[in-house]
Amino acid sequence: MHVLITGAAGMIGRKLAERLGRDGAVLGTAIDRLTLADVVPAARPASFGGAVDIVTSDLGAPSTAAALLERRPGLIFHLAAIVSAEAELDFDKGYRVNLDGMRALLEAIRACGEGYRPNFVFTSSAAAYGAPFPDVIGDDFILTPHTSYGTQKVMCELMLADYTRRGFVDGVGIRLPGVCVRPGKPNKAASGFWSNIIREPLIGEPAVLPVPDSVRHTLASPRAVTGYLLHAAGLPRGPLAGRITLTMPGVCCTVAEQIEALRRTAGDKAVARIRREPDATIARIVAGWPHRFAATRALAMGFRPDASFDDIIRIHIEDELGGAIAA
Amino acid sequence: MHVLITGAAGMIGRKLAERLGRDGAVLGTAIDRLTLADVVPAARPASFGGAVDIVTSDLGAPSTAAALLERRPGLIFHLAAIVSAEAELDFDKGYRVNLDGMRALLEAIRACGEGYRPNFVFTSSAAAYGAPFPDVIGDDFILTPHTSYGTQKVMCELMLADYTRRGFVDGVGIRLPGVCVRPGKPNKAASGFWSNIIREPLIGEPAVLPVPDSVRHTLASPRAVTGYLLHAAGLPRGPLAGRITLTMPGVCCTVAEQIEALRRTAGDKAVARIRREPDATIARIVAGWPHRFAATRALAMGFRPDASFDDIIRIHIEDELGGAIAA
Repeated sequence: MHVLITGAAGMIGRKLAERLGRDGAVLGTAIDRLTLADVVPAARPASFGGAVDIVTSDLGAPSTAAALLERRPGLIFHLAAIVSAEAELDFDKGYRVNLDGMRALLEAIRACGEGYRPNFVFTSSAAAYGAPFPDVIGDDFILTPHTSYGTQKVMCELMLADYTRRGFVDGVGIRLPGVCVRPGKPNKAASGFWSNIIREPLIGEPAVLPVPDSVRHTLASPRAVTGYLLHAAGLPRGPLAGRITLTMPGVCCTVAEQIEALRRTAGDKAVARIRREPDATIARIVAGWPHRFAATRALAMGFRPDASFDDIIRIHIEDELGGAIAA
Repeated sequence: MHVLITGAAGMIGRKLAERLGRDGAVLGTAIDRLTLADVVPAARPASFGGAVDIVTSDLGAPSTAAALLERRPGLIFHLAAIVSAEAELDFDKGYRVNLDGMRALLEAIRACGEGYRPNFVFTSSAAAYGAPFPDVIGDDFILTPHTSYGTQKVMCELMLADYTRRGFVDGVGIRLPGVCVRPGKPNKAASGFWSNIIREPLIGEPAVLPVPDSVRHTLASPRAVTGYLLHAAGLPRGPLAGRITLTMPGVCCTVAEQIEALRRTAGDKAVARIRREPDATIARIVAGWPHRFAATRALAMGFRPDASFDDIIRIHIEDELGGAIAA
């Protein structure tokens, strides 16, 4: 099996490549080649014995897509995207990469012809949704994004469903909840605090909490998200019945519950490193985000969220901190 | 006020141009210029005294959009589209005209700059929806189209909402139900029978009914649709709260109820001209279409459907047959 990952240098792309490299197989078939594409060079997964192509190119540029398909990957994870804040800041770039990039890839697949119809897994986002919301967002709830990024993601969902219906590709999409705990440095994204208030205290650093403790959101660990991607690839497509993009489940919790989980894991000292600095702008942005999903279809189809927020913290400590936390 | 209509040679475009020509004003302002654009020359509305530009061009072609905006129309009705059956038959043409054409228009508007932010009314369609459905489709129900045409319409809805949110245009969209009674000749569209079984008997011609009498759908007269377009143009945008496309109301009735209305209007003789010829393919296509909408938001915002199917027939007789029906 030849697997192509776009956006392979991103956080999820890297985790997925590492997992595939470690497993050496996907959907019951040995992986003989990994193509890792991104605008910056992706890392070669250490434990993988097969061929690896590191491709540095921009999906928004002409002919990039065709080049990625030259060896006809049987499984494609399309993760490449300009993130929300950048798509909001640079309108043209967001549409060029997030919409036109996906379309170029789908068109290049269609142009291959000769019965080429790869398994295509697309990552959409909870940003597909826009307030006002019911208490629990069901699978039939309308998608009215409040950002250009969310708009582009839903447009891609629709396009993928149409290309799949027409038989050009075998697509499935997953709408990811907030990913937590994000490894790396604190960032200025409005959603950064979800991860910052856990990751930083665990390494003895202070963290800023800009929203009230009562704010509720749905979260998934990077490990769970990697699991979703692989499960999506293996999903029988019949039961999707044309509605090929699924809202993923996650751990639904308040900031207060996150903090209590941190206390159980790392004690009062860790919790004391969280500094409350209310930020009205961030609070307003976050208020427009969906907080609870039914994810009925995804759960029925076997997608498995993390068991609890305690579990999300434990996974971070295992996967990123080698099991050790600051005293 | 300078008004631009794209798709002005189509059935709704023509009705709208005639109505604007007759009224001589829109949104309380005199119309000094009408630009009527289509791939074939649109008809000049007989009763209009102002300037009329008949533009024959293809929105899918480069520079077409910019040319249409040269005189900065303050109100744009974007009706141009490849219809459902053709978009299904010619995949590239559907995306080129229905998606890229709209995007070119929006981009050309954005490129004007200098505070140009026209009132932009877009016609989406009930084809935005895809089965399975609840008994009544609420305004929050997800859009999962089953056709390329429907896919392109929803993608355009999303794009228009984003361009509007960003302040490039002042958009509003309306999802039209089935239009009935369509003037003209019987056509092979799967939805043709809705109109055929009324229009043909009224002029003494036979008509074919390919589906069971129990089939239910939501319909609006061309006159009601023209009213929706004008009402949309004048809609205060605040209450839309970002969800700028509204599902329009209509008369929800079964084929049996249509036939009884025909009987009340034109007698048993007219009804006897309907020949039942079940067509499994058409029945299957029609079964996937939405049949009943709550249209709560549109009704609350003052969109007024036809009063009954009897009314829809009466409007057809008045507007298309000069008040006379076959004996």
